[in-house]
Amino acid sequence: MVKHEDALRRLKVIHGHLGGIIRMVEENAYCVDIIRQIQAVEAALNKVSAIILDEHLNSCVITAIQGEDADERERVLTEILDVFEMATKV
Amino acid sequence: MVKHEDALRRLKVIHGHLGGIIRMVEENAYCVDIIRQIQAVEAALNKVSAIILDEHLNSCVITAIQGEDADERERVLTEILDVFEMATKV
Amino acid sequence: MVKHEDALRRLKVIHGHLGGIIRMVEENAYCVDIIRQIQAVEAALNKVSAIILDEHLNSCVITAIQGEDADERERVLTEILDVFEMATKV
Amino acid sequence: MVKHEDALRRLKVIHGHLGGIIRMVEENAYCVDIIRQIQAVEAALNKVSAIILDEHLNSCVITAIQGEDADERERVLTEILDVFEMATKV
Repeated sequence: MVKHEDALRRLKVIHGHLGGIIRMVEENAYCVDIIRQIQAVEAALNKVSAIILDEHLNSCVITAIQGEDADERERVLTEILDVFEMATKV
Repeated sequence: MVKHEDALRRLKVIHGHLGGIIRMVEENAYCVDIIRQIQAVEAALNKVSAIILDEHLNSCVITAIQGEDADERERVLTEILDVFEMATKV
Repeated sequence: MVKHEDALRRLKVIHGHLGGIIRMVEENAYCVDIIRQIQAVEAALNKVSAIILDEHLNSCVITAIQGEDADERERVLTEILDVFEMATKV
Repeated sequence: MVKHEDALRRLKVIHGHLGGIIRMVEENAYCVDIIRQIQAVEAALNKVSAIILDEHLNSCVITAIQGEDADERERVLTEILDVFEMATKV
């Protein structure tokens, strides 16, 4: 079981950041400032995804690939490919 | 002054979604499921940015470009370019 | 009419770069090295898009927005929004 | 050794597509049409990267992770993380 302490801490900061963006919108902040803050949140979320993927590669993926179950190996590799393809789209 | 009602509503949903992701991490959900939810949040944030940019183009940008102030015109166009370049990076 | 000399020069360099990637694949280069070169080409293409958008904003967009034709104004602004939304997806 | 026949075929098509974009720029095509074609090339390149990553995961990565060399295992996993992080940026 992987514990994502760094990722969790970052997500809580991002959650607060997003709350701040909601207040900006409620107070009619300048459009471009809002968009820039949203882009900063997205960059921070990309970092969290990378941290979680790192932990995943070094735990579940190693276990699956070293295991005997060919279907499970195939499954974890397909998942990695899926998150990579999705990463090129968001 | 632009009111972003649709964007605001979406941001509140995304804020709740992100709260759910934090709980997933706290409860040690499967890594790939967490990453997929983060990517869903990013796609939703992209949509909010597009909505706000649309409103910005149809208000401030038109006003600035039709105005007499060349510096202000230059400023709003440079901002649009900046958010476009940043969009290709996050 | 806008002349894109800088963009053209960059595109020709990228075209050569892509030819080099094709040779890498033909010669069975290491997969990760190929992917990194593809990502370098994509970053270079993003820069070209930004250069062309900059020229577009400072010519056609200003002309359209200062013009009398409301449909034309709407059209150029919708186009900018479209390329922004697409930029968040590729 | 992995043979990337599908990737190679796609790269050659993309190379031709990029040549067409260069001609569009030389002939002063409409800016937004050029940007849209560049974005189409980027989407096609993302697909090639995914195909090559798929082949990489199912060959080198499996070999490395099932092998005895811990440094090699670490190296291939770090590479995957690197291309993922880069994918979120281009």
